Amino acid sequence: MASNSMWGGRFSESPDAVMDLINVCIDYDKRLYAQDIQGSLAHSAMLVETGILSAQDGEKITSGLNTILQEIESDQFVYSRDLEDIHMNIEARLRELIGDAAGRLHTARSRNDQVATDFKLYIRDWIDGAVQEISQLQLILAEKAKAYNDVVMPGFTHLQTAQPVTFGHHLLAYVEMLERDYSRFMDARNRLNQSPLGSAALAGTSFPIDRDKTAQTLGFNEPTRNSLDAVADRDFVLEVLSAASITAMHCSRFAEEIVIWSTAQFNFVNLPDRFTTGSSIMPQKRNPDAAELVRAKIGRIAGAFQALLMVMKGLPLTYSKDMQEDKEMTFDALQSLSITLAAMIGMVKDMTPVEGNMREAAKSGFSTATDLADWCVRALNIPFRDAHHITGTAVAEAEKRGVDLPDLPLEALQAIEPRITEDVYSVLSVEASVQSRTSYGGTAPSNVAQQAESWIDLLKAR
Amino acid sequence: MASNSMWGGRFSESPDAVMDLINVCIDYDKRLYAQDIQGSLAHSAMLVETGILSAQDGEKITSGLNTILQEIESDQFVYSRDLEDIHMNIEARLRELIGDAAGRLHTARSRNDQVATDFKLYIRDWIDGAVQEISQLQLILAEKAKAYNDVVMPGFTHLQTAQPVTFGHHLLAYVEMLERDYSRFMDARNRLNQSPLGSAALAGTSFPIDRDKTAQTLGFNEPTRNSLDAVADRDFVLEVLSAASITAMHCSRFAEEIVIWSTAQFNFVNLPDRFTTGSSIMPQKRNPDAAELVRAKIGRIAGAFQALLMVMKGLPLTYSKDMQEDKEMTFDALQSLSITLAAMIGMVKDMTPVEGNMREAAKSGFSTATDLADWCVRALNIPFRDAHHITGTAVAEAEKRGVDLPDLPLEALQAIEPRITEDVYSVLSVEASVQSRTSYGGTAPSNVAQQAESWIDLLKAR
Amino acid sequence: MASNSMWGGRFSESPDAVMDLINVCIDYDKRLYAQDIQGSLAHSAMLVETGILSAQDGEKITSGLNTILQEIESDQFVYSRDLEDIHMNIEARLRELIGDAAGRLHTARSRNDQVATDFKLYIRDWIDGAVQEISQLQLILAEKAKAYNDVVMPGFTHLQTAQPVTFGHHLLAYVEMLERDYSRFMDARNRLNQSPLGSAALAGTSFPIDRDKTAQTLGFNEPTRNSLDAVADRDFVLEVLSAASITAMHCSRFAEEIVIWSTAQFNFVNLPDRFTTGSSIMPQKRNPDAAELVRAKIGRIAGAFQALLMVMKGLPLTYSKDMQEDKEMTFDALQSLSITLAAMIGMVKDMTPVEGNMREAAKSGFSTATDLADWCVRALNIPFRDAHHITGTAVAEAEKRGVDLPDLPLEALQAIEPRITEDVYSVLSVEASVQSRTSYGGTAPSNVAQQAESWIDLLKAR
Amino acid sequence: MASNSMWGGRFSESPDAVMDLINVCIDYDKRLYAQDIQGSLAHSAMLVETGILSAQDGEKITSGLNTILQEIESDQFVYSRDLEDIHMNIEARLRELIGDAAGRLHTARSRNDQVATDFKLYIRDWIDGAVQEISQLQLILAEKAKAYNDVVMPGFTHLQTAQPVTFGHHLLAYVEMLERDYSRFMDARNRLNQSPLGSAALAGTSFPIDRDKTAQTLGFNEPTRNSLDAVADRDFVLEVLSAASITAMHCSRFAEEIVIWSTAQFNFVNLPDRFTTGSSIMPQKRNPDAAELVRAKIGRIAGAFQALLMVMKGLPLTYSKDMQEDKEMTFDALQSLSITLAAMIGMVKDMTPVEGNMREAAKSGFSTATDLADWCVRALNIPFRDAHHITGTAVAEAEKRGVDLPDLPLEALQAIEPRITEDVYSVLSVEASVQSRTSYGGTAPSNVAQQAESWIDLLKAR
Repeated sequence: MASNSMWGGRFSESPDAVMDLINVCIDYDKRLYAQDIQGSLAHSAMLVETGILSAQDGEKITSGLNTILQEIESDQFVYSRDLEDIHMNIEARLRELIGDAAGRLHTARSRNDQVATDFKLYIRDWIDGAVQEISQLQLILAEKAKAYNDVVMPGFTHLQTAQPVTFGHHLLAYVEMLERDYSRFMDARNRLNQSPLGSAALAGTSFPIDRDKTAQTLGFNEPTRNSLDAVADRDFVLEVLSAASITAMHCSRFAEEIVIWSTAQFNFVNLPDRFTTGSSIMPQKRNPDAAELVRAKIGRIAGAFQALLMVMKGLPLTYSKDMQEDKEMTFDALQSLSITLAAMIGMVKDMTPVEGNMREAAKSGFSTATDLADWCVRALNIPFRDAHHITGTAVAEAEKRGVDLPDLPLEALQAIEPRITEDVYSVLSVEASVQSRTSYGGTAPSNVAQQAESWIDLLKAR
Repeated sequence: MASNSMWGGRFSESPDAVMDLINVCIDYDKRLYAQDIQGSLAHSAMLVETGILSAQDGEKITSGLNTILQEIESDQFVYSRDLEDIHMNIEARLRELIGDAAGRLHTARSRNDQVATDFKLYIRDWIDGAVQEISQLQLILAEKAKAYNDVVMPGFTHLQTAQPVTFGHHLLAYVEMLERDYSRFMDARNRLNQSPLGSAALAGTSFPIDRDKTAQTLGFNEPTRNSLDAVADRDFVLEVLSAASITAMHCSRFAEEIVIWSTAQFNFVNLPDRFTTGSSIMPQKRNPDAAELVRAKIGRIAGAFQALLMVMKGLPLTYSKDMQEDKEMTFDALQSLSITLAAMIGMVKDMTPVEGNMREAAKSGFSTATDLADWCVRALNIPFRDAHHITGTAVAEAEKRGVDLPDLPLEALQAIEPRITEDVYSVLSVEASVQSRTSYGGTAPSNVAQQAESWIDLLKAR
Repeated sequence: MASNSMWGGRFSESPDAVMDLINVCIDYDKRLYAQDIQGSLAHSAMLVETGILSAQDGEKITSGLNTILQEIESDQFVYSRDLEDIHMNIEARLRELIGDAAGRLHTARSRNDQVATDFKLYIRDWIDGAVQEISQLQLILAEKAKAYNDVVMPGFTHLQTAQPVTFGHHLLAYVEMLERDYSRFMDARNRLNQSPLGSAALAGTSFPIDRDKTAQTLGFNEPTRNSLDAVADRDFVLEVLSAASITAMHCSRFAEEIVIWSTAQFNFVNLPDRFTTGSSIMPQKRNPDAAELVRAKIGRIAGAFQALLMVMKGLPLTYSKDMQEDKEMTFDALQSLSITLAAMIGMVKDMTPVEGNMREAAKSGFSTATDLADWCVRALNIPFRDAHHITGTAVAEAEKRGVDLPDLPLEALQAIEPRITEDVYSVLSVEASVQSRTSYGGTAPSNVAQQAESWIDLLKAR
Repeated sequence: MASNSMWGGRFSESPDAVMDLINVCIDYDKRLYAQDIQGSLAHSAMLVETGILSAQDGEKITSGLNTILQEIESDQFVYSRDLEDIHMNIEARLRELIGDAAGRLHTARSRNDQVATDFKLYIRDWIDGAVQEISQLQLILAEKAKAYNDVVMPGFTHLQTAQPVTFGHHLLAYVEMLERDYSRFMDARNRLNQSPLGSAALAGTSFPIDRDKTAQTLGFNEPTRNSLDAVADRDFVLEVLSAASITAMHCSRFAEEIVIWSTAQFNFVNLPDRFTTGSSIMPQKRNPDAAELVRAKIGRIAGAFQALLMVMKGLPLTYSKDMQEDKEMTFDALQSLSITLAAMIGMVKDMTPVEGNMREAAKSGFSTATDLADWCVRALNIPFRDAHHITGTAVAEAEKRGVDLPDLPLEALQAIEPRITEDVYSVLSVEASVQSRTSYGGTAPSNVAQQAESWIDLLKAR
């Protein structure tokens, strides 16, 4: 067998290279630097307060950690791959800076509870950013919904025109989805908000630590209740990834609509230039690239959830090295959702409807047939199933004549059902149709305006 | 090409057969019968109350639906595949029973909001059952944890003995996981608990319906706020499937432990006969079948989440036929979790630890090395990192002598660190070790007993 | 806690019910009846041939199995849930029919190799049907491609018109995808075609069996080479599920196109009535239900792959009960693909293009801009990147004037590049454009006709 | 709402930053540099040969591309994010180096067929490396199998001892799995090996190119047959990812066994130091980190398959921006499998069995009960099902007496079945048991040695 310089050949001749690749995670886990320092500061302060650490050592540690934070944030920190991860990099630097006192920071703590704490803080910080993005997207949608509360467009089922609705109403549907996303993330945040710090390697510790204190300092609601669970748990990652998958699914639906609405055939919306790409040779072409990327991002986000779930499947307690797979894919997935939301915000902000095309499409397909049926039920007290039959006949007649429903003469309607009167025409236009749908949650422009305003108030106050 | 009688050949010669397979869902959606009748009763009552339906028609409808419910529950109802789904089956039967009034039930309602309502009610009912199962499993675990609060076993990392813990503490770790599962399902229940009924096909309705009324009758917190979203939303299914995946993951971890603990080599537990299978030829063999099945069920549950997410990806609003894929896989996945929980309850209830084997394993591997280090820190004020070094040397010495740490003579320890005193032996036994871990959430038997009792109280009151 | 009659409550009060649900698989594995009998007949014949079984017993067994086959196929066989699976059901019935000789059939065989053999035969049979369906779909596509080899339609990127192509060319793209699917299934068939029979429980057997003989009788290429692998292997299921996922993906792409092409806005195709559904109230509505279902089926097929992969992850050799999860989801996924292919065949067979709309769309968007650039390169020897620039300017000019490229006067073109001549107009129509694309694999109608014919010949001979 | 500096806030205030993140792929697609230059060299040579490009320009291009290759491989190439991807980076540099001639390289080619070609070449190169790694792992396993062909260990089902097998036999099971992996990758290689080059944007080209020529130069079997398919196809990525998932599954099973075998309780193997990690405080601890990582890697590999499948689901032809998601996750997944294989090679190479522990475990659990039953069938002509019953009684008797089967006195056996003779003891030891399993594929040491040698010959010649 010839050797293979490109791939694993390199590894198999050098086990150290493989283990290096397996063990060294500093390249990606350095993202946790802020949370790691935050956690160490809280731990150190508690150790001093409980008398486990001298005030003098505590001050050295605090000062050293703050120095390191500054070094990292000003890009002066030199990461060492030999020290494998962010925790050892920081600890080694601390020893350089303050000497032996650094060795006392790890009292009553282990890598296991330290990592769990850091990663929880990171996820929590991410949620805090994501829910702001979601709220911002909701606000933009609500404001657009208010502005276009009465712009008529087709309401689709099967991508076929079913009934007229308003563009504002359509946009508010996404505000609702995003509100569920918002609350799903907030629930996840609340559920993860227990401090693992002080669980030590897996069994707790014999030092008289005060876990309530560190929990409070770090903004946790309380300490975790079981040390084995605390170091073996990655639910907080999985739950956030599943919530992110659902949010990404919502975005993919809107993105698909934007792609379809941007075709020459639909031409329902104009997208902002910055979110399309053209072609040097076809300058009129406006490829909805941002929408396509948004549509696609669900793949890697849902993939990360499945991947981590597969990793965790069947793992005995407590920590196994398998769990080191949790971070890289999570960082990627969460960043992908952040980008997705940002792209949505950018696209929606400057997207404008082509109102004429929307209205024209809404009128096609006898879209007010249901309104005719409802009128029969209301005005003539005909059972709905029978009114359906009358309407079907009327639509067939209109189709035969090549006219829309509102253009069918009264005698033609009366030939089908003699009791039909002139009044019926008041419900057959698309405007009349949407205005009539005043049931709670219905598409009537007045409803839409009210809902939009209510959302705007809520979101601005959030 | 020869024809293929086994598979699709049949279909391609008969398009009707294909469309039949595609359209007919009565074989599985009949599970929704109770929820469908419940929803229709609420809708009919509201129509009467708002004057849209006469009291007389309302009574007929109520009576007819109750008759149908009895017919179904007594297995006297004849399902028709020609009527495709459960909704049409019930409606057709209602017409047989009460005549024209049946045609008025569908006033101000459509299949779209009806299906969404039925399925939400079904999911909610399932959650109500599942959280009971979860609580029951928690209670059994907590009671066992109380009973075995001081039984020492190895605490593993990497499936290698790390530190001694107690069996009760290990069991309580699962109570914690299940509590997150419980609250995750409760959050999902709360989030889905908005009534889609009255959203009609997609645009709302012009009839003066009272959606608050039907919402209240059906136990929903409120009506949904946007009719397009209401009929296009399947978040409530996805969220429950993702929560179920995480619960199944927890169960798979315990199941893996049971499989490993049941080997001849570990022999940590005895499983109840009913949850193992033997072999006619090897009667001593006790295959942990139930545990293996529990370990495996995560596959199809997570598969269902992934499948439905893939279905929903990129679907334009509102309803598309794709969404008909939502039910069959969900029924299967949720039933799988129910079975998983029931199997866990059965297995855990009668599982007993082989205490001698557990203790023996806990003693091996110098599992109290950390206790020695902590003693050095506490008693001699040595920095933790240096205490680590002393301990490493002591363990190496013990290994060389072929003895356990507690059996190393004092002079051997003093040769490493002269300040070590006789007192050190008070922390080197596995019993001393677990008893010393009194930090909140730690494995000390007193902690475990207290946590277990606190859980038992909470769960019995739930 | 109140009891829960709906779900698991039932189970937890009755462990037998749970284990019944876990162990009993006769409800779905009875699909394997034909393969199970086929395998037993081959095994029995070999036992006689090698002298392990008497000829007399062999005859009884053969006769009994054939009786059972007839009973099952004429719906006279009574399945017993107490006998758990199809194998025990058949064995028990055999004993009823022929007495003690039935007990000799299991010589030198175990449930493990028997199940592996049956399931392999089943998968192989399914493949044999599926590749016929694929070929049939290819043939229909190729015949349509031949018929519409010169019908011009837009070639899309980003769902924006890029260059004109022909409808026949577009259809042939799917023939190519399906050919890869075909060969992927054939490769999988070849790889799985080793006989596990005779591997016994896991270690082989001490009886002088002839595995080559049974392999040959059952149409396998050879026996498997390692008994542990033979009973622990489910690769053949996974590989077929992954190939099915890719085929389903191809179908989902075509289905999406059909859904979009069927909108009022595109109106590119007419679908056969039988593959759409209408609405009693909107008779003109033709929902592309079959296409939507085809688009959705990938979910459960890919979900099954993921599910089984998750089940198999980390399973120690050889058989574990986890592996019982392999069948139900596989049956469902493979049947789903069969239905998908059948629906595709039905839809495509009678689908007709709306040629005028396609051509009109192809002309829009300056779709022949690339042809102009290529002409400049060819006729004027201008580097391609510079020709791009010229074309961009020309398109901008056409857009300003509100005309299509072919309608731009020569002087306007010459104002951009003086060397342009009248000859350029020979490449600017959509017909000229497609006719010029004669490179191998290009969209020129002559190419398309030739490729289509070549496919038709190949597929008819297959 | 407060602004969020950490995440998307940055993006939403700056759409350019979002689009930059969406569009710029140079950070990861620069891995394609070698394949991109290779493709351009082939294209340029063909253009000269067909007279589309002058020999002079051709020489300039060749020389320029070779310079760029050297620059990149010596780390002197400066990548520009403004040029977005590797293709534009190389093209821009080429223009700097050789001027206008660079503009002619893109004649009769577009980004779409260029990217498809590059990525196919990359995947093919990866396969060529991966199959070497697989073969190397097989060879190491086969050599170990030969060395340990007669070392007895327990053959497990349900992780319970079922029958004795040999360690060599167990190792060869993995050689079989890997052989299927090998052939799966080779099939995928063969299927992808069609050249997309010359398909241009999507419709082919009007230039008289010679696609056979470029296909041949690049080592492809032939050109693709349909230009639309050629640029829209990502099957070659999906198929390789699915094959990689199955390989990773095989590795996860072995890894799980290694983790379990490395426990203090099993202690079946010694792992090489370099592939375990210890603990400064517990020097005897040898965490099987490499095995755990191998077990976990399936997550991200299978996740990538699901992710890309989800991306491709329902994409209309031909290219959409969604497809840009194909590379990053594929690079990661394929590298993960390379690392996995390398880690397996390293671990297995120096892993040694603890023969005494294996043999002791094999003897437990009456593991030769089947041998007793088989002896009854062979020597006494008792039907197998009845022999089973006899054996069950014997095992129960042995269990009652607390002895192993071989230690049961003859009179005890004869009390169960009088015809049993002294000869029976010749089959009841574990050595006798494995030696008797001489059926093809069985565990007899002679079989194992022969299979191992046959593999070694085949693999060395590969």
